[in-house]
Amino acid sequence: MKKTSKERLSEKLETWKHFGDLGNGGITRRAFEPAEIQAREEFKKRITALGMTLEVDDVGNLYATYPGKEDLPRIVVGSHMDSVISGGNYDGIYGVLSGLEAAETIITDKIELRHPLTVMVWTNEEGSKFEPAMMSSGIVTGKFDKEKMFAVKDRNSDLTFGQALKDSGWEGDAKYRLNSKDYCCYFEPHIEQGPVLEDGGFEIGVVEGVVGMINYDLILEGVSAHAGTFPQQYRKDALKAASTIVIDLWDKLGKIADDLVFTFGEFELKPNVHTVVPNHVKISVDSRHRDPEIMKKVVEVIKSIPGEVCKCKFSYEEHWGRDTVEFNKQMVGYIEESARELGYTYHEMYSGAGHDAQYVSYILPATMLFIPSKDGLSHTVVEYSSPDQCWHGANVVLNAILKADAEF
Amino acid sequence: MKKTSKERLSEKLETWKHFGDLGNGGITRRAFEPAEIQAREEFKKRITALGMTLEVDDVGNLYATYPGKEDLPRIVVGSHMDSVISGGNYDGIYGVLSGLEAAETIITDKIELRHPLTVMVWTNEEGSKFEPAMMSSGIVTGKFDKEKMFAVKDRNSDLTFGQALKDSGWEGDAKYRLNSKDYCCYFEPHIEQGPVLEDGGFEIGVVEGVVGMINYDLILEGVSAHAGTFPQQYRKDALKAASTIVIDLWDKLGKIADDLVFTFGEFELKPNVHTVVPNHVKISVDSRHRDPEIMKKVVEVIKSIPGEVCKCKFSYEEHWGRDTVEFNKQMVGYIEESARELGYTYHEMYSGAGHDAQYVSYILPATMLFIPSKDGLSHTVVEYSSPDQCWHGANVVLNAILKADAEF
Repeated sequence: MKKTSKERLSEKLETWKHFGDLGNGGITRRAFEPAEIQAREEFKKRITALGMTLEVDDVGNLYATYPGKEDLPRIVVGSHMDSVISGGNYDGIYGVLSGLEAAETIITDKIELRHPLTVMVWTNEEGSKFEPAMMSSGIVTGKFDKEKMFAVKDRNSDLTFGQALKDSGWEGDAKYRLNSKDYCCYFEPHIEQGPVLEDGGFEIGVVEGVVGMINYDLILEGVSAHAGTFPQQYRKDALKAASTIVIDLWDKLGKIADDLVFTFGEFELKPNVHTVVPNHVKISVDSRHRDPEIMKKVVEVIKSIPGEVCKCKFSYEEHWGRDTVEFNKQMVGYIEESARELGYTYHEMYSGAGHDAQYVSYILPATMLFIPSKDGLSHTVVEYSSPDQCWHGANVVLNAILKADAEF
Repeated sequence: MKKTSKERLSEKLETWKHFGDLGNGGITRRAFEPAEIQAREEFKKRITALGMTLEVDDVGNLYATYPGKEDLPRIVVGSHMDSVISGGNYDGIYGVLSGLEAAETIITDKIELRHPLTVMVWTNEEGSKFEPAMMSSGIVTGKFDKEKMFAVKDRNSDLTFGQALKDSGWEGDAKYRLNSKDYCCYFEPHIEQGPVLEDGGFEIGVVEGVVGMINYDLILEGVSAHAGTFPQQYRKDALKAASTIVIDLWDKLGKIADDLVFTFGEFELKPNVHTVVPNHVKISVDSRHRDPEIMKKVVEVIKSIPGEVCKCKFSYEEHWGRDTVEFNKQMVGYIEESARELGYTYHEMYSGAGHDAQYVSYILPATMLFIPSKDGLSHTVVEYSSPDQCWHGANVVLNAILKADAEF
């Protein structure tokens, strides 16, 4: 089995830690901000030194390609270099750098590929500067309207995505977009962002798909009243009602399936004054599972909440959702075989988070692989995967590329 | 029994509705803002027309006095003219105008008093412009330090209370402050701000005191995690823990006493993102009861919450509290006798809210009377007491003044 260089991969990860360094172990590296431009420049410098050629599409996505022996479509390994605010040094960037390390190994070890190999970088995957997340893969795969996305404004200013792209100097040509004619398959390495691999002692996550999800808002309307003068038995307290629903849903949804996840992450309370009984609470519900039948049961539980809870009026708003995305079985097989042949312990799993790979899977055979995340943490300055864990993932990527090269 | 004029009182209440009119039935009339200055000018105009003389102390409190037959200390009826943001037309102003109507009746009906009669207006009672509430009565009775209070800034600007007072032109002399030499007793009429009188069909609340209160913050620290990737059983969800505590406290505190009130009014949740498990919740607890033994039990329940709830770290912070204030029994008796002799139904009760009367009670025999609040609502644009309810209260004030005049 071929292997990448652990030292080279670690050096890459160390270098990219400087771009957006917060001085506390983490980074903030949002689309087209100076730190992200530095990251692009460093990427360009490195791929050029390796003899790869750079193409940039009309959304600012980067494609660094090394030629193959035959006139075949390209194999691509992709991820993103932008981060959330106060993010870490692995989410996104690990996928780019493990792909780059696999390419460097192929090039410097003179491993001949039939197909050209492309390492790509998606623009603004996190959506931390311009919403939504996965904006560029959404545009390229036809999920999002380009014009609408280009008009999206910075969360904190009037700067549009389109203007920021233009100003950055990284606007390229639509003819270079990822497509199903010039490319044959897509790998996306990523950190797990959960504790399953670490907890189970697995080195590699073989990702079979991305789970479906629903988003609801639960709304409680009570009556505000004076904290000192309004007797308890007369109150229509929206926080009491909300707390009752949260506890009830933890119980009922928890019984549907062991691996169902559900989160009440956003909480709005009014008037939010310590001497006033709350008259309004809004709670977000995010729930995810790969099985549509399970998701149907989740929706049934939400819809079965009565119209009155603790004397408060209950209602819900249904927001966006997504169906489960199943990755290409042949591609999933390359990851699994590579992990097994390398002697790594691995675990078949679904991704709970969204990734560019889920949109790519509409136009190309695609899959992902995960490496463990310390304590399951991500989107935080303390997110961490060890040099060995990172290296094992890169080795799986390298061998999966070789398998795809042999069979596509 | 003497009676005030319902028409005149209603006219006064209607007139003051213009000062800070929001156009939706409510007002915003904060200390030293133009609407509050208009209210002061109107007060000055009216008391001058009645032959009363105006004194203003160093905090901007107004004292309008009509002489008595004998050289005795003054009887005073007081309240405030400022409001909360989006407040109503009864809280505070009802006390001033029912006192003014009682004075107008005494003057125009030529009812001779032994004592001089003062109608007074407290500055910035609500604290909606400059915190804290009851600032001026706190200063005058020695509860608050004047220098510190004068340095308090507007909630939304750098303007200090002291500067706003100076700029307003309503800064007077400390020699005019309410004191126990020149004054003999204090009445404060107010709306109930709760549903007890309305619900029980009572016309007058005979207020025996102001209940004691405690303020705590409950703090839950969990671990934030990705909503899609982090299995439910591993989560340390601060919102789940907080909801559990809220429900548990409703149960446990609810059993301590029927008339105990407790409110979780302020709620802080972090990071407050719909795809992230909350890692931090802070909840305020406000609880009030007249019996110190009951309040002790409340504190015991809060302190008995374990250090770990739903895998989250629990802690609490104790903030300010106040002991129950008992009003002067002789003064309370004047209110009760007047209500009974006027043929009004009445109810003996404690105030759950704080009022200037509680500070005044440290230096003078003091008490309050309540009139019903529609649906128990206050601090809202829809707060309402009917012309008859307002009138009944003013009649009780008038007769209580006469009783005090006879006995002090």
